[in-house]
Amino acid sequence: MNKPAIPKGTRDFLPVQMAGRKYIFSVLQQTFEKYGFLPLETPAMELQETLRGKYGEEGNQLIFNVLNSGDFLKEVDTAQPLQSSKILRHISKKALRYDLTVPLARVVAMYPNEIILPFRRYQMQPVWRADSPQKGRYQEFYQCDVDIIGTPSLTSEAELLTMIQDVFDTLRLPDIIIKINHRQLLSGIVEQLSLQDKETDVLVAIDKWDKIGTDGVLKELTQREINPEKAKELINMLSLKGDTIMVLQELAQKLNHSPKAQQGIQDLQKILNYLSAMNYSTERIQVDITLARGLSYYTGTIIEVKANNVQMGSILGGGRYDNLIGMFSGRDITAVGISFGVDRIYDVLKEKQLLPTNAYNSRVLVTQFHENLLENSLMVLSTLRKAGIATELYPEPKKIGKQFEYADKKGIPYVVIVGEDEVKTGIYSLKELKTGVQQSFSLQEIINHLKNS
Amino acid sequence: MNKPAIPKGTRDFLPVQMAGRKYIFSVLQQTFEKYGFLPLETPAMELQETLRGKYGEEGNQLIFNVLNSGDFLKEVDTAQPLQSSKILRHISKKALRYDLTVPLARVVAMYPNEIILPFRRYQMQPVWRADSPQKGRYQEFYQCDVDIIGTPSLTSEAELLTMIQDVFDTLRLPDIIIKINHRQLLSGIVEQLSLQDKETDVLVAIDKWDKIGTDGVLKELTQREINPEKAKELINMLSLKGDTIMVLQELAQKLNHSPKAQQGIQDLQKILNYLSAMNYSTERIQVDITLARGLSYYTGTIIEVKANNVQMGSILGGGRYDNLIGMFSGRDITAVGISFGVDRIYDVLKEKQLLPTNAYNSRVLVTQFHENLLENSLMVLSTLRKAGIATELYPEPKKIGKQFEYADKKGIPYVVIVGEDEVKTGIYSLKELKTGVQQSFSLQEIINHLKNS
Repeated sequence: MNKPAIPKGTRDFLPVQMAGRKYIFSVLQQTFEKYGFLPLETPAMELQETLRGKYGEEGNQLIFNVLNSGDFLKEVDTAQPLQSSKILRHISKKALRYDLTVPLARVVAMYPNEIILPFRRYQMQPVWRADSPQKGRYQEFYQCDVDIIGTPSLTSEAELLTMIQDVFDTLRLPDIIIKINHRQLLSGIVEQLSLQDKETDVLVAIDKWDKIGTDGVLKELTQREINPEKAKELINMLSLKGDTIMVLQELAQKLNHSPKAQQGIQDLQKILNYLSAMNYSTERIQVDITLARGLSYYTGTIIEVKANNVQMGSILGGGRYDNLIGMFSGRDITAVGISFGVDRIYDVLKEKQLLPTNAYNSRVLVTQFHENLLENSLMVLSTLRKAGIATELYPEPKKIGKQFEYADKKGIPYVVIVGEDEVKTGIYSLKELKTGVQQSFSLQEIINHLKNS
Repeated sequence: MNKPAIPKGTRDFLPVQMAGRKYIFSVLQQTFEKYGFLPLETPAMELQETLRGKYGEEGNQLIFNVLNSGDFLKEVDTAQPLQSSKILRHISKKALRYDLTVPLARVVAMYPNEIILPFRRYQMQPVWRADSPQKGRYQEFYQCDVDIIGTPSLTSEAELLTMIQDVFDTLRLPDIIIKINHRQLLSGIVEQLSLQDKETDVLVAIDKWDKIGTDGVLKELTQREINPEKAKELINMLSLKGDTIMVLQELAQKLNHSPKAQQGIQDLQKILNYLSAMNYSTERIQVDITLARGLSYYTGTIIEVKANNVQMGSILGGGRYDNLIGMFSGRDITAVGISFGVDRIYDVLKEKQLLPTNAYNSRVLVTQFHENLLENSLMVLSTLRKAGIATELYPEPKKIGKQFEYADKKGIPYVVIVGEDEVKTGIYSLKELKTGVQQSFSLQEIINHLKNS
């Protein structure tokens, strides 16, 4: 027999990992619901016509295609030599979803009567990408998306920025930096420098700032035949640092020839004002005009979160996007949303020892000495469970040492010993494994003790 | 543009359906955890060698195969005329999981150091089957499986039977019948009648009892050349009804020549005794010796649950199975488990109006009259959220009627009105939409009022 395995880039989540993941999901979910976001779930498989052509050529290659059932070649002329790219659409009508945004757009178009705009939804489900796992990427991973569909109000951005802070504060990871930018500010810089015909070149270079630094960007701009004077001016602006409100004011002065930039700056200022009105400080928010997060997607505000003092890429990304949600509806529908990177958040919390390690274990193991005493063990088991205490029974009358070993290995903190004396007197021994302390209690006393400790 | 659609046999779950489903999942999960079951999740895709050959020929046909990425024909000699069945294994290395049992068996084999036996695990994830959706079956549906791996103790069966009752009592659906049977009892009947060489014929006929009734089974037995005397004796035994403990006693007398039957009866009696020891009545439990639930799967106890007074098939199935979990480990590992049919449970609860209808909506909408008053609306919004009340803001200063309409359509029960007077005085109007009652409160009074209502 071959040693069993799972597909590359996929993972099993054993109980210990599940405890951490469920903890993160439950913090996210509770916070989303406090903000009035509603849950949505869509099927793992979408029709090819829904997914195809939505993610660019590179994205298309990464979609997992599902083979038609039965004789999948029946629509194919097999007498001819076949080519993968030509027969794909004949043998695969369905594919695994690649993200949660295209399904959301489909849902908005399919259920106009059920979905009331503005639509506030969250969705936490896996997506699949045939990415090369060597890059440390997974082929199956959860996305946790929160979006507000159908209103241009900048209060949406402000709400998302307070929600981000609530989530990471609740996860006891307050030491984060929230970077914001605005697509119009990026376009405005290009406008200010009269580089409209080089917009893509400029933005591609800016987007690499994080990876290649000032000199790299300068070099890149020169290679792309941008006037060295203008390149330097650009670098100056991109290097602006400091208090968020001050940076915006400085930019407003420097970009005084660009109506687009003024619009972007005004939007960001408004958002920051809204945050103050909600009594949230703007301390953790930093304007970063090098932030682009892919160039074609976002049309307004751009958001990214990183954890400080940890080697890790961004743990959240998002922004306003106007050209996606309406794609199946035949009209423009504005939207703003964020996506929590749960896998990375898990890794950061684990490194900082902020995850529960065995939260879902039983709290108590009830022992079983002898077939004759089993009914009493069962009574104890049932009584503790009825009191709401997660309890299990050691299922066989094996040596008591083996039963303790089981509790210890699994991390069950307490053992109730049900022996002959205990059955006679109704007084049971409760042992706490960590301390070794053993106390004699009635069942009611055990319940009280466990509820108060 | 084509009207968007989803693959046949799959479903979107919009917020209202999600509320009901999340309610069911949370009751299941909380009960599972009280019983010391640990969560497990496995990838949607498994390797073909893990899934193939595990579900019989019919099952194999229903597996959704995932096409290899890139040039999937590269290992295929395309100069030859191709056949679907011959090239499948060359173009598809992965497939969507068909159930949660084979992945569990794989996990038990892959992680011998992490998984401590007996292993109590639950798993709630979707599975995929290319079943014909006309039958009212879905191609994507959740399974909720709970299993105890690695102990032959009949206390496991007893625990599962109490847990089933806890779950349906918590779901306010106490009116259920739990049918139990035992594989050895079925074999014992065959043994008693000296029909060992016709075992499969007899069991196939018995398994149809529910669908074709007494006469049908009798006819089927005759067609399968079973002695009419023996067929009648069989029917007599299968028709035994009444108090569970009495039925078992009668069967013990009638099947006095079959050691197998005696073993099965003893097991069931023991399980019922354990239930009594746990202070659970056996009222809702019925021995049904026609219950087989597929013939090759279960090796011991067989369990099935139906809701009374509802037109609906079984809402739970399970039993003890000894030949599956060890399949990748190269040794026999006994197991007992149950699977909750969440889709059917949802339908039953919906029919009986036992589902929450809008549990995840905001409780409060904060209005927005005018750009000038927006900052005050934001302050109110944030204050209510910080008090833990799910609140949202109407994001634009539209007509107040439209804002109320939005709350009404979405089922948000309360509206806080933030107008000029309210901002001046700090006294806000809280309107309950259902009753139309409008009261004037300070923010703290609103919080108290909502927390107490």
